[in-house]
Amino acid sequence: VKTVAIVGVGLIGGSFALALRKAGFSGKIIGVSSPRTIAEALRLKAVDEGLPLEEAAPQSDLIYLAQPIIRILELFDQLDPHLKPGALVTDAGSTKMEINERASVIRRGLFLGGHPMAGKESRGVAAAEADLFVGRPYILTPSRPADLEEPSVVEFLDWVRRIGSRPIVLDPAAHDELVALASHLPQLASTALAAALSGQPAASKIGQVAGPGLIDSTRLALSPFDVWDDILNTNTAEIDKALATYIETLQQIRRELTAGSLEERFEAAEDFSKDLRRKQR
Amino acid sequence: VKTVAIVGVGLIGGSFALALRKAGFSGKIIGVSSPRTIAEALRLKAVDEGLPLEEAAPQSDLIYLAQPIIRILELFDQLDPHLKPGALVTDAGSTKMEINERASVIRRGLFLGGHPMAGKESRGVAAAEADLFVGRPYILTPSRPADLEEPSVVEFLDWVRRIGSRPIVLDPAAHDELVALASHLPQLASTALAAALSGQPAASKIGQVAGPGLIDSTRLALSPFDVWDDILNTNTAEIDKALATYIETLQQIRRELTAGSLEERFEAAEDFSKDLRRKQR
Repeated sequence: VKTVAIVGVGLIGGSFALALRKAGFSGKIIGVSSPRTIAEALRLKAVDEGLPLEEAAPQSDLIYLAQPIIRILELFDQLDPHLKPGALVTDAGSTKMEINERASVIRRGLFLGGHPMAGKESRGVAAAEADLFVGRPYILTPSRPADLEEPSVVEFLDWVRRIGSRPIVLDPAAHDELVALASHLPQLASTALAAALSGQPAASKIGQVAGPGLIDSTRLALSPFDVWDDILNTNTAEIDKALATYIETLQQIRRELTAGSLEERFEAAEDFSKDLRRKQR
Repeated sequence: VKTVAIVGVGLIGGSFALALRKAGFSGKIIGVSSPRTIAEALRLKAVDEGLPLEEAAPQSDLIYLAQPIIRILELFDQLDPHLKPGALVTDAGSTKMEINERASVIRRGLFLGGHPMAGKESRGVAAAEADLFVGRPYILTPSRPADLEEPSVVEFLDWVRRIGSRPIVLDPAAHDELVALASHLPQLASTALAAALSGQPAASKIGQVAGPGLIDSTRLALSPFDVWDDILNTNTAEIDKALATYIETLQQIRRELTAGSLEERFEAAEDFSKDLRRKQR
């Protein structure tokens, strides 16, 4: 890889560029973004120059799509004619089924779906940091397992490791099911909790007596909708299934509450939560 | 108040004793607990002596019940005959309706329900600290509003303020409804989330991709059942109502997910969660 194009130089795209540099990448990094973002990215030394996609793509060996999901989906058709033959196109979108499907129009290069499990509350290239991916999982969703043996993919995976991430390979459907459970359901459980409480007559008093538990439980509910809109629209079926499972468990809990038989449920939850923390280390 | 009896010298009882001392209380503090706990409490200078209830009660102006709820409920009948006339009996139980009802057998003294909204993960007198109540709400649930004007209650409220707490007066039913929403529902929402995920075929993979959101959302699910057993048994109706409201909101969210109309729900949740944090300061 001699030249990389980062399309969408925000928190993720900008951090990937800074991480590549820190890991020793000495080639050229081109940014494709609005003039204002490019000016900021140049100042932060995240990119070497800014170019329109039609000029950046033909000279890039790796194209890194880091825009919102809906923008990535719209991009593939216009991207293919400009690709350097054999280039690797990858993305950082949070859902993978639709992106992998739409990417099938990529013919001149190879597409590898990706989802770095990293982020933070602030957005934009100003919040980018070279260490954002360190210690975090980086999910890769090849359309065909054989893609993992392509030299361009082998080299990309090497960079993923060099920036400190742990690559995990999943097929796109398994990815979307997994993140519906591990990420999208917790978000909606928190949103539902805050929304349910906000509609109560006693809502204004809840803040007076809230302890650290409620604070933890409503942290995800602080997420602005525009971050979630694309995810909800491109993983609807899996999220709906996860919500149905959650509602079913809550209904069982209501029955167990009345029957005074919640002990096993608490134990299963406690065991799972402890195990989750062990796996984080 | 010259003599205080702390019945159940654990985290809360022990901390209340230490807090009283730090706030300048110079009378006697008697502990009523197991010999082992009393030995530890004496070593930590939380109590001046340990006595059985029948010997502690007749000489105490304030009796502070800090055992598990079920033990408090069982205690009232045997307590009344030993009370010094005019003594104030108060408690630190996390639910108040049943306790206030059972406390109606107290005739020789006056009962004032209480719920200090303080705690931490460790339990037992060894974890007690004088500053546990600082900045925390301390809910009081008088059986009759006029009780607040009794000199013994006025003096107790003064101590509540002197240990750094913010007294909040609620009637017992309003208390139980409020904590069902602010504390018991978040607990069961977290338990349900962890339990639902633990039953998934992909459960073992969730830990590999879990981010800080899932960690926050499953923190309450780490709570051991024995802490919650009494609460669930003595606030069943309000908790069931809160669960029903939560399930209803989740069902609405499923419909809004499919209809692509979740924006207002996210905004209500975001506003509530921000407001909650403002009220904490």
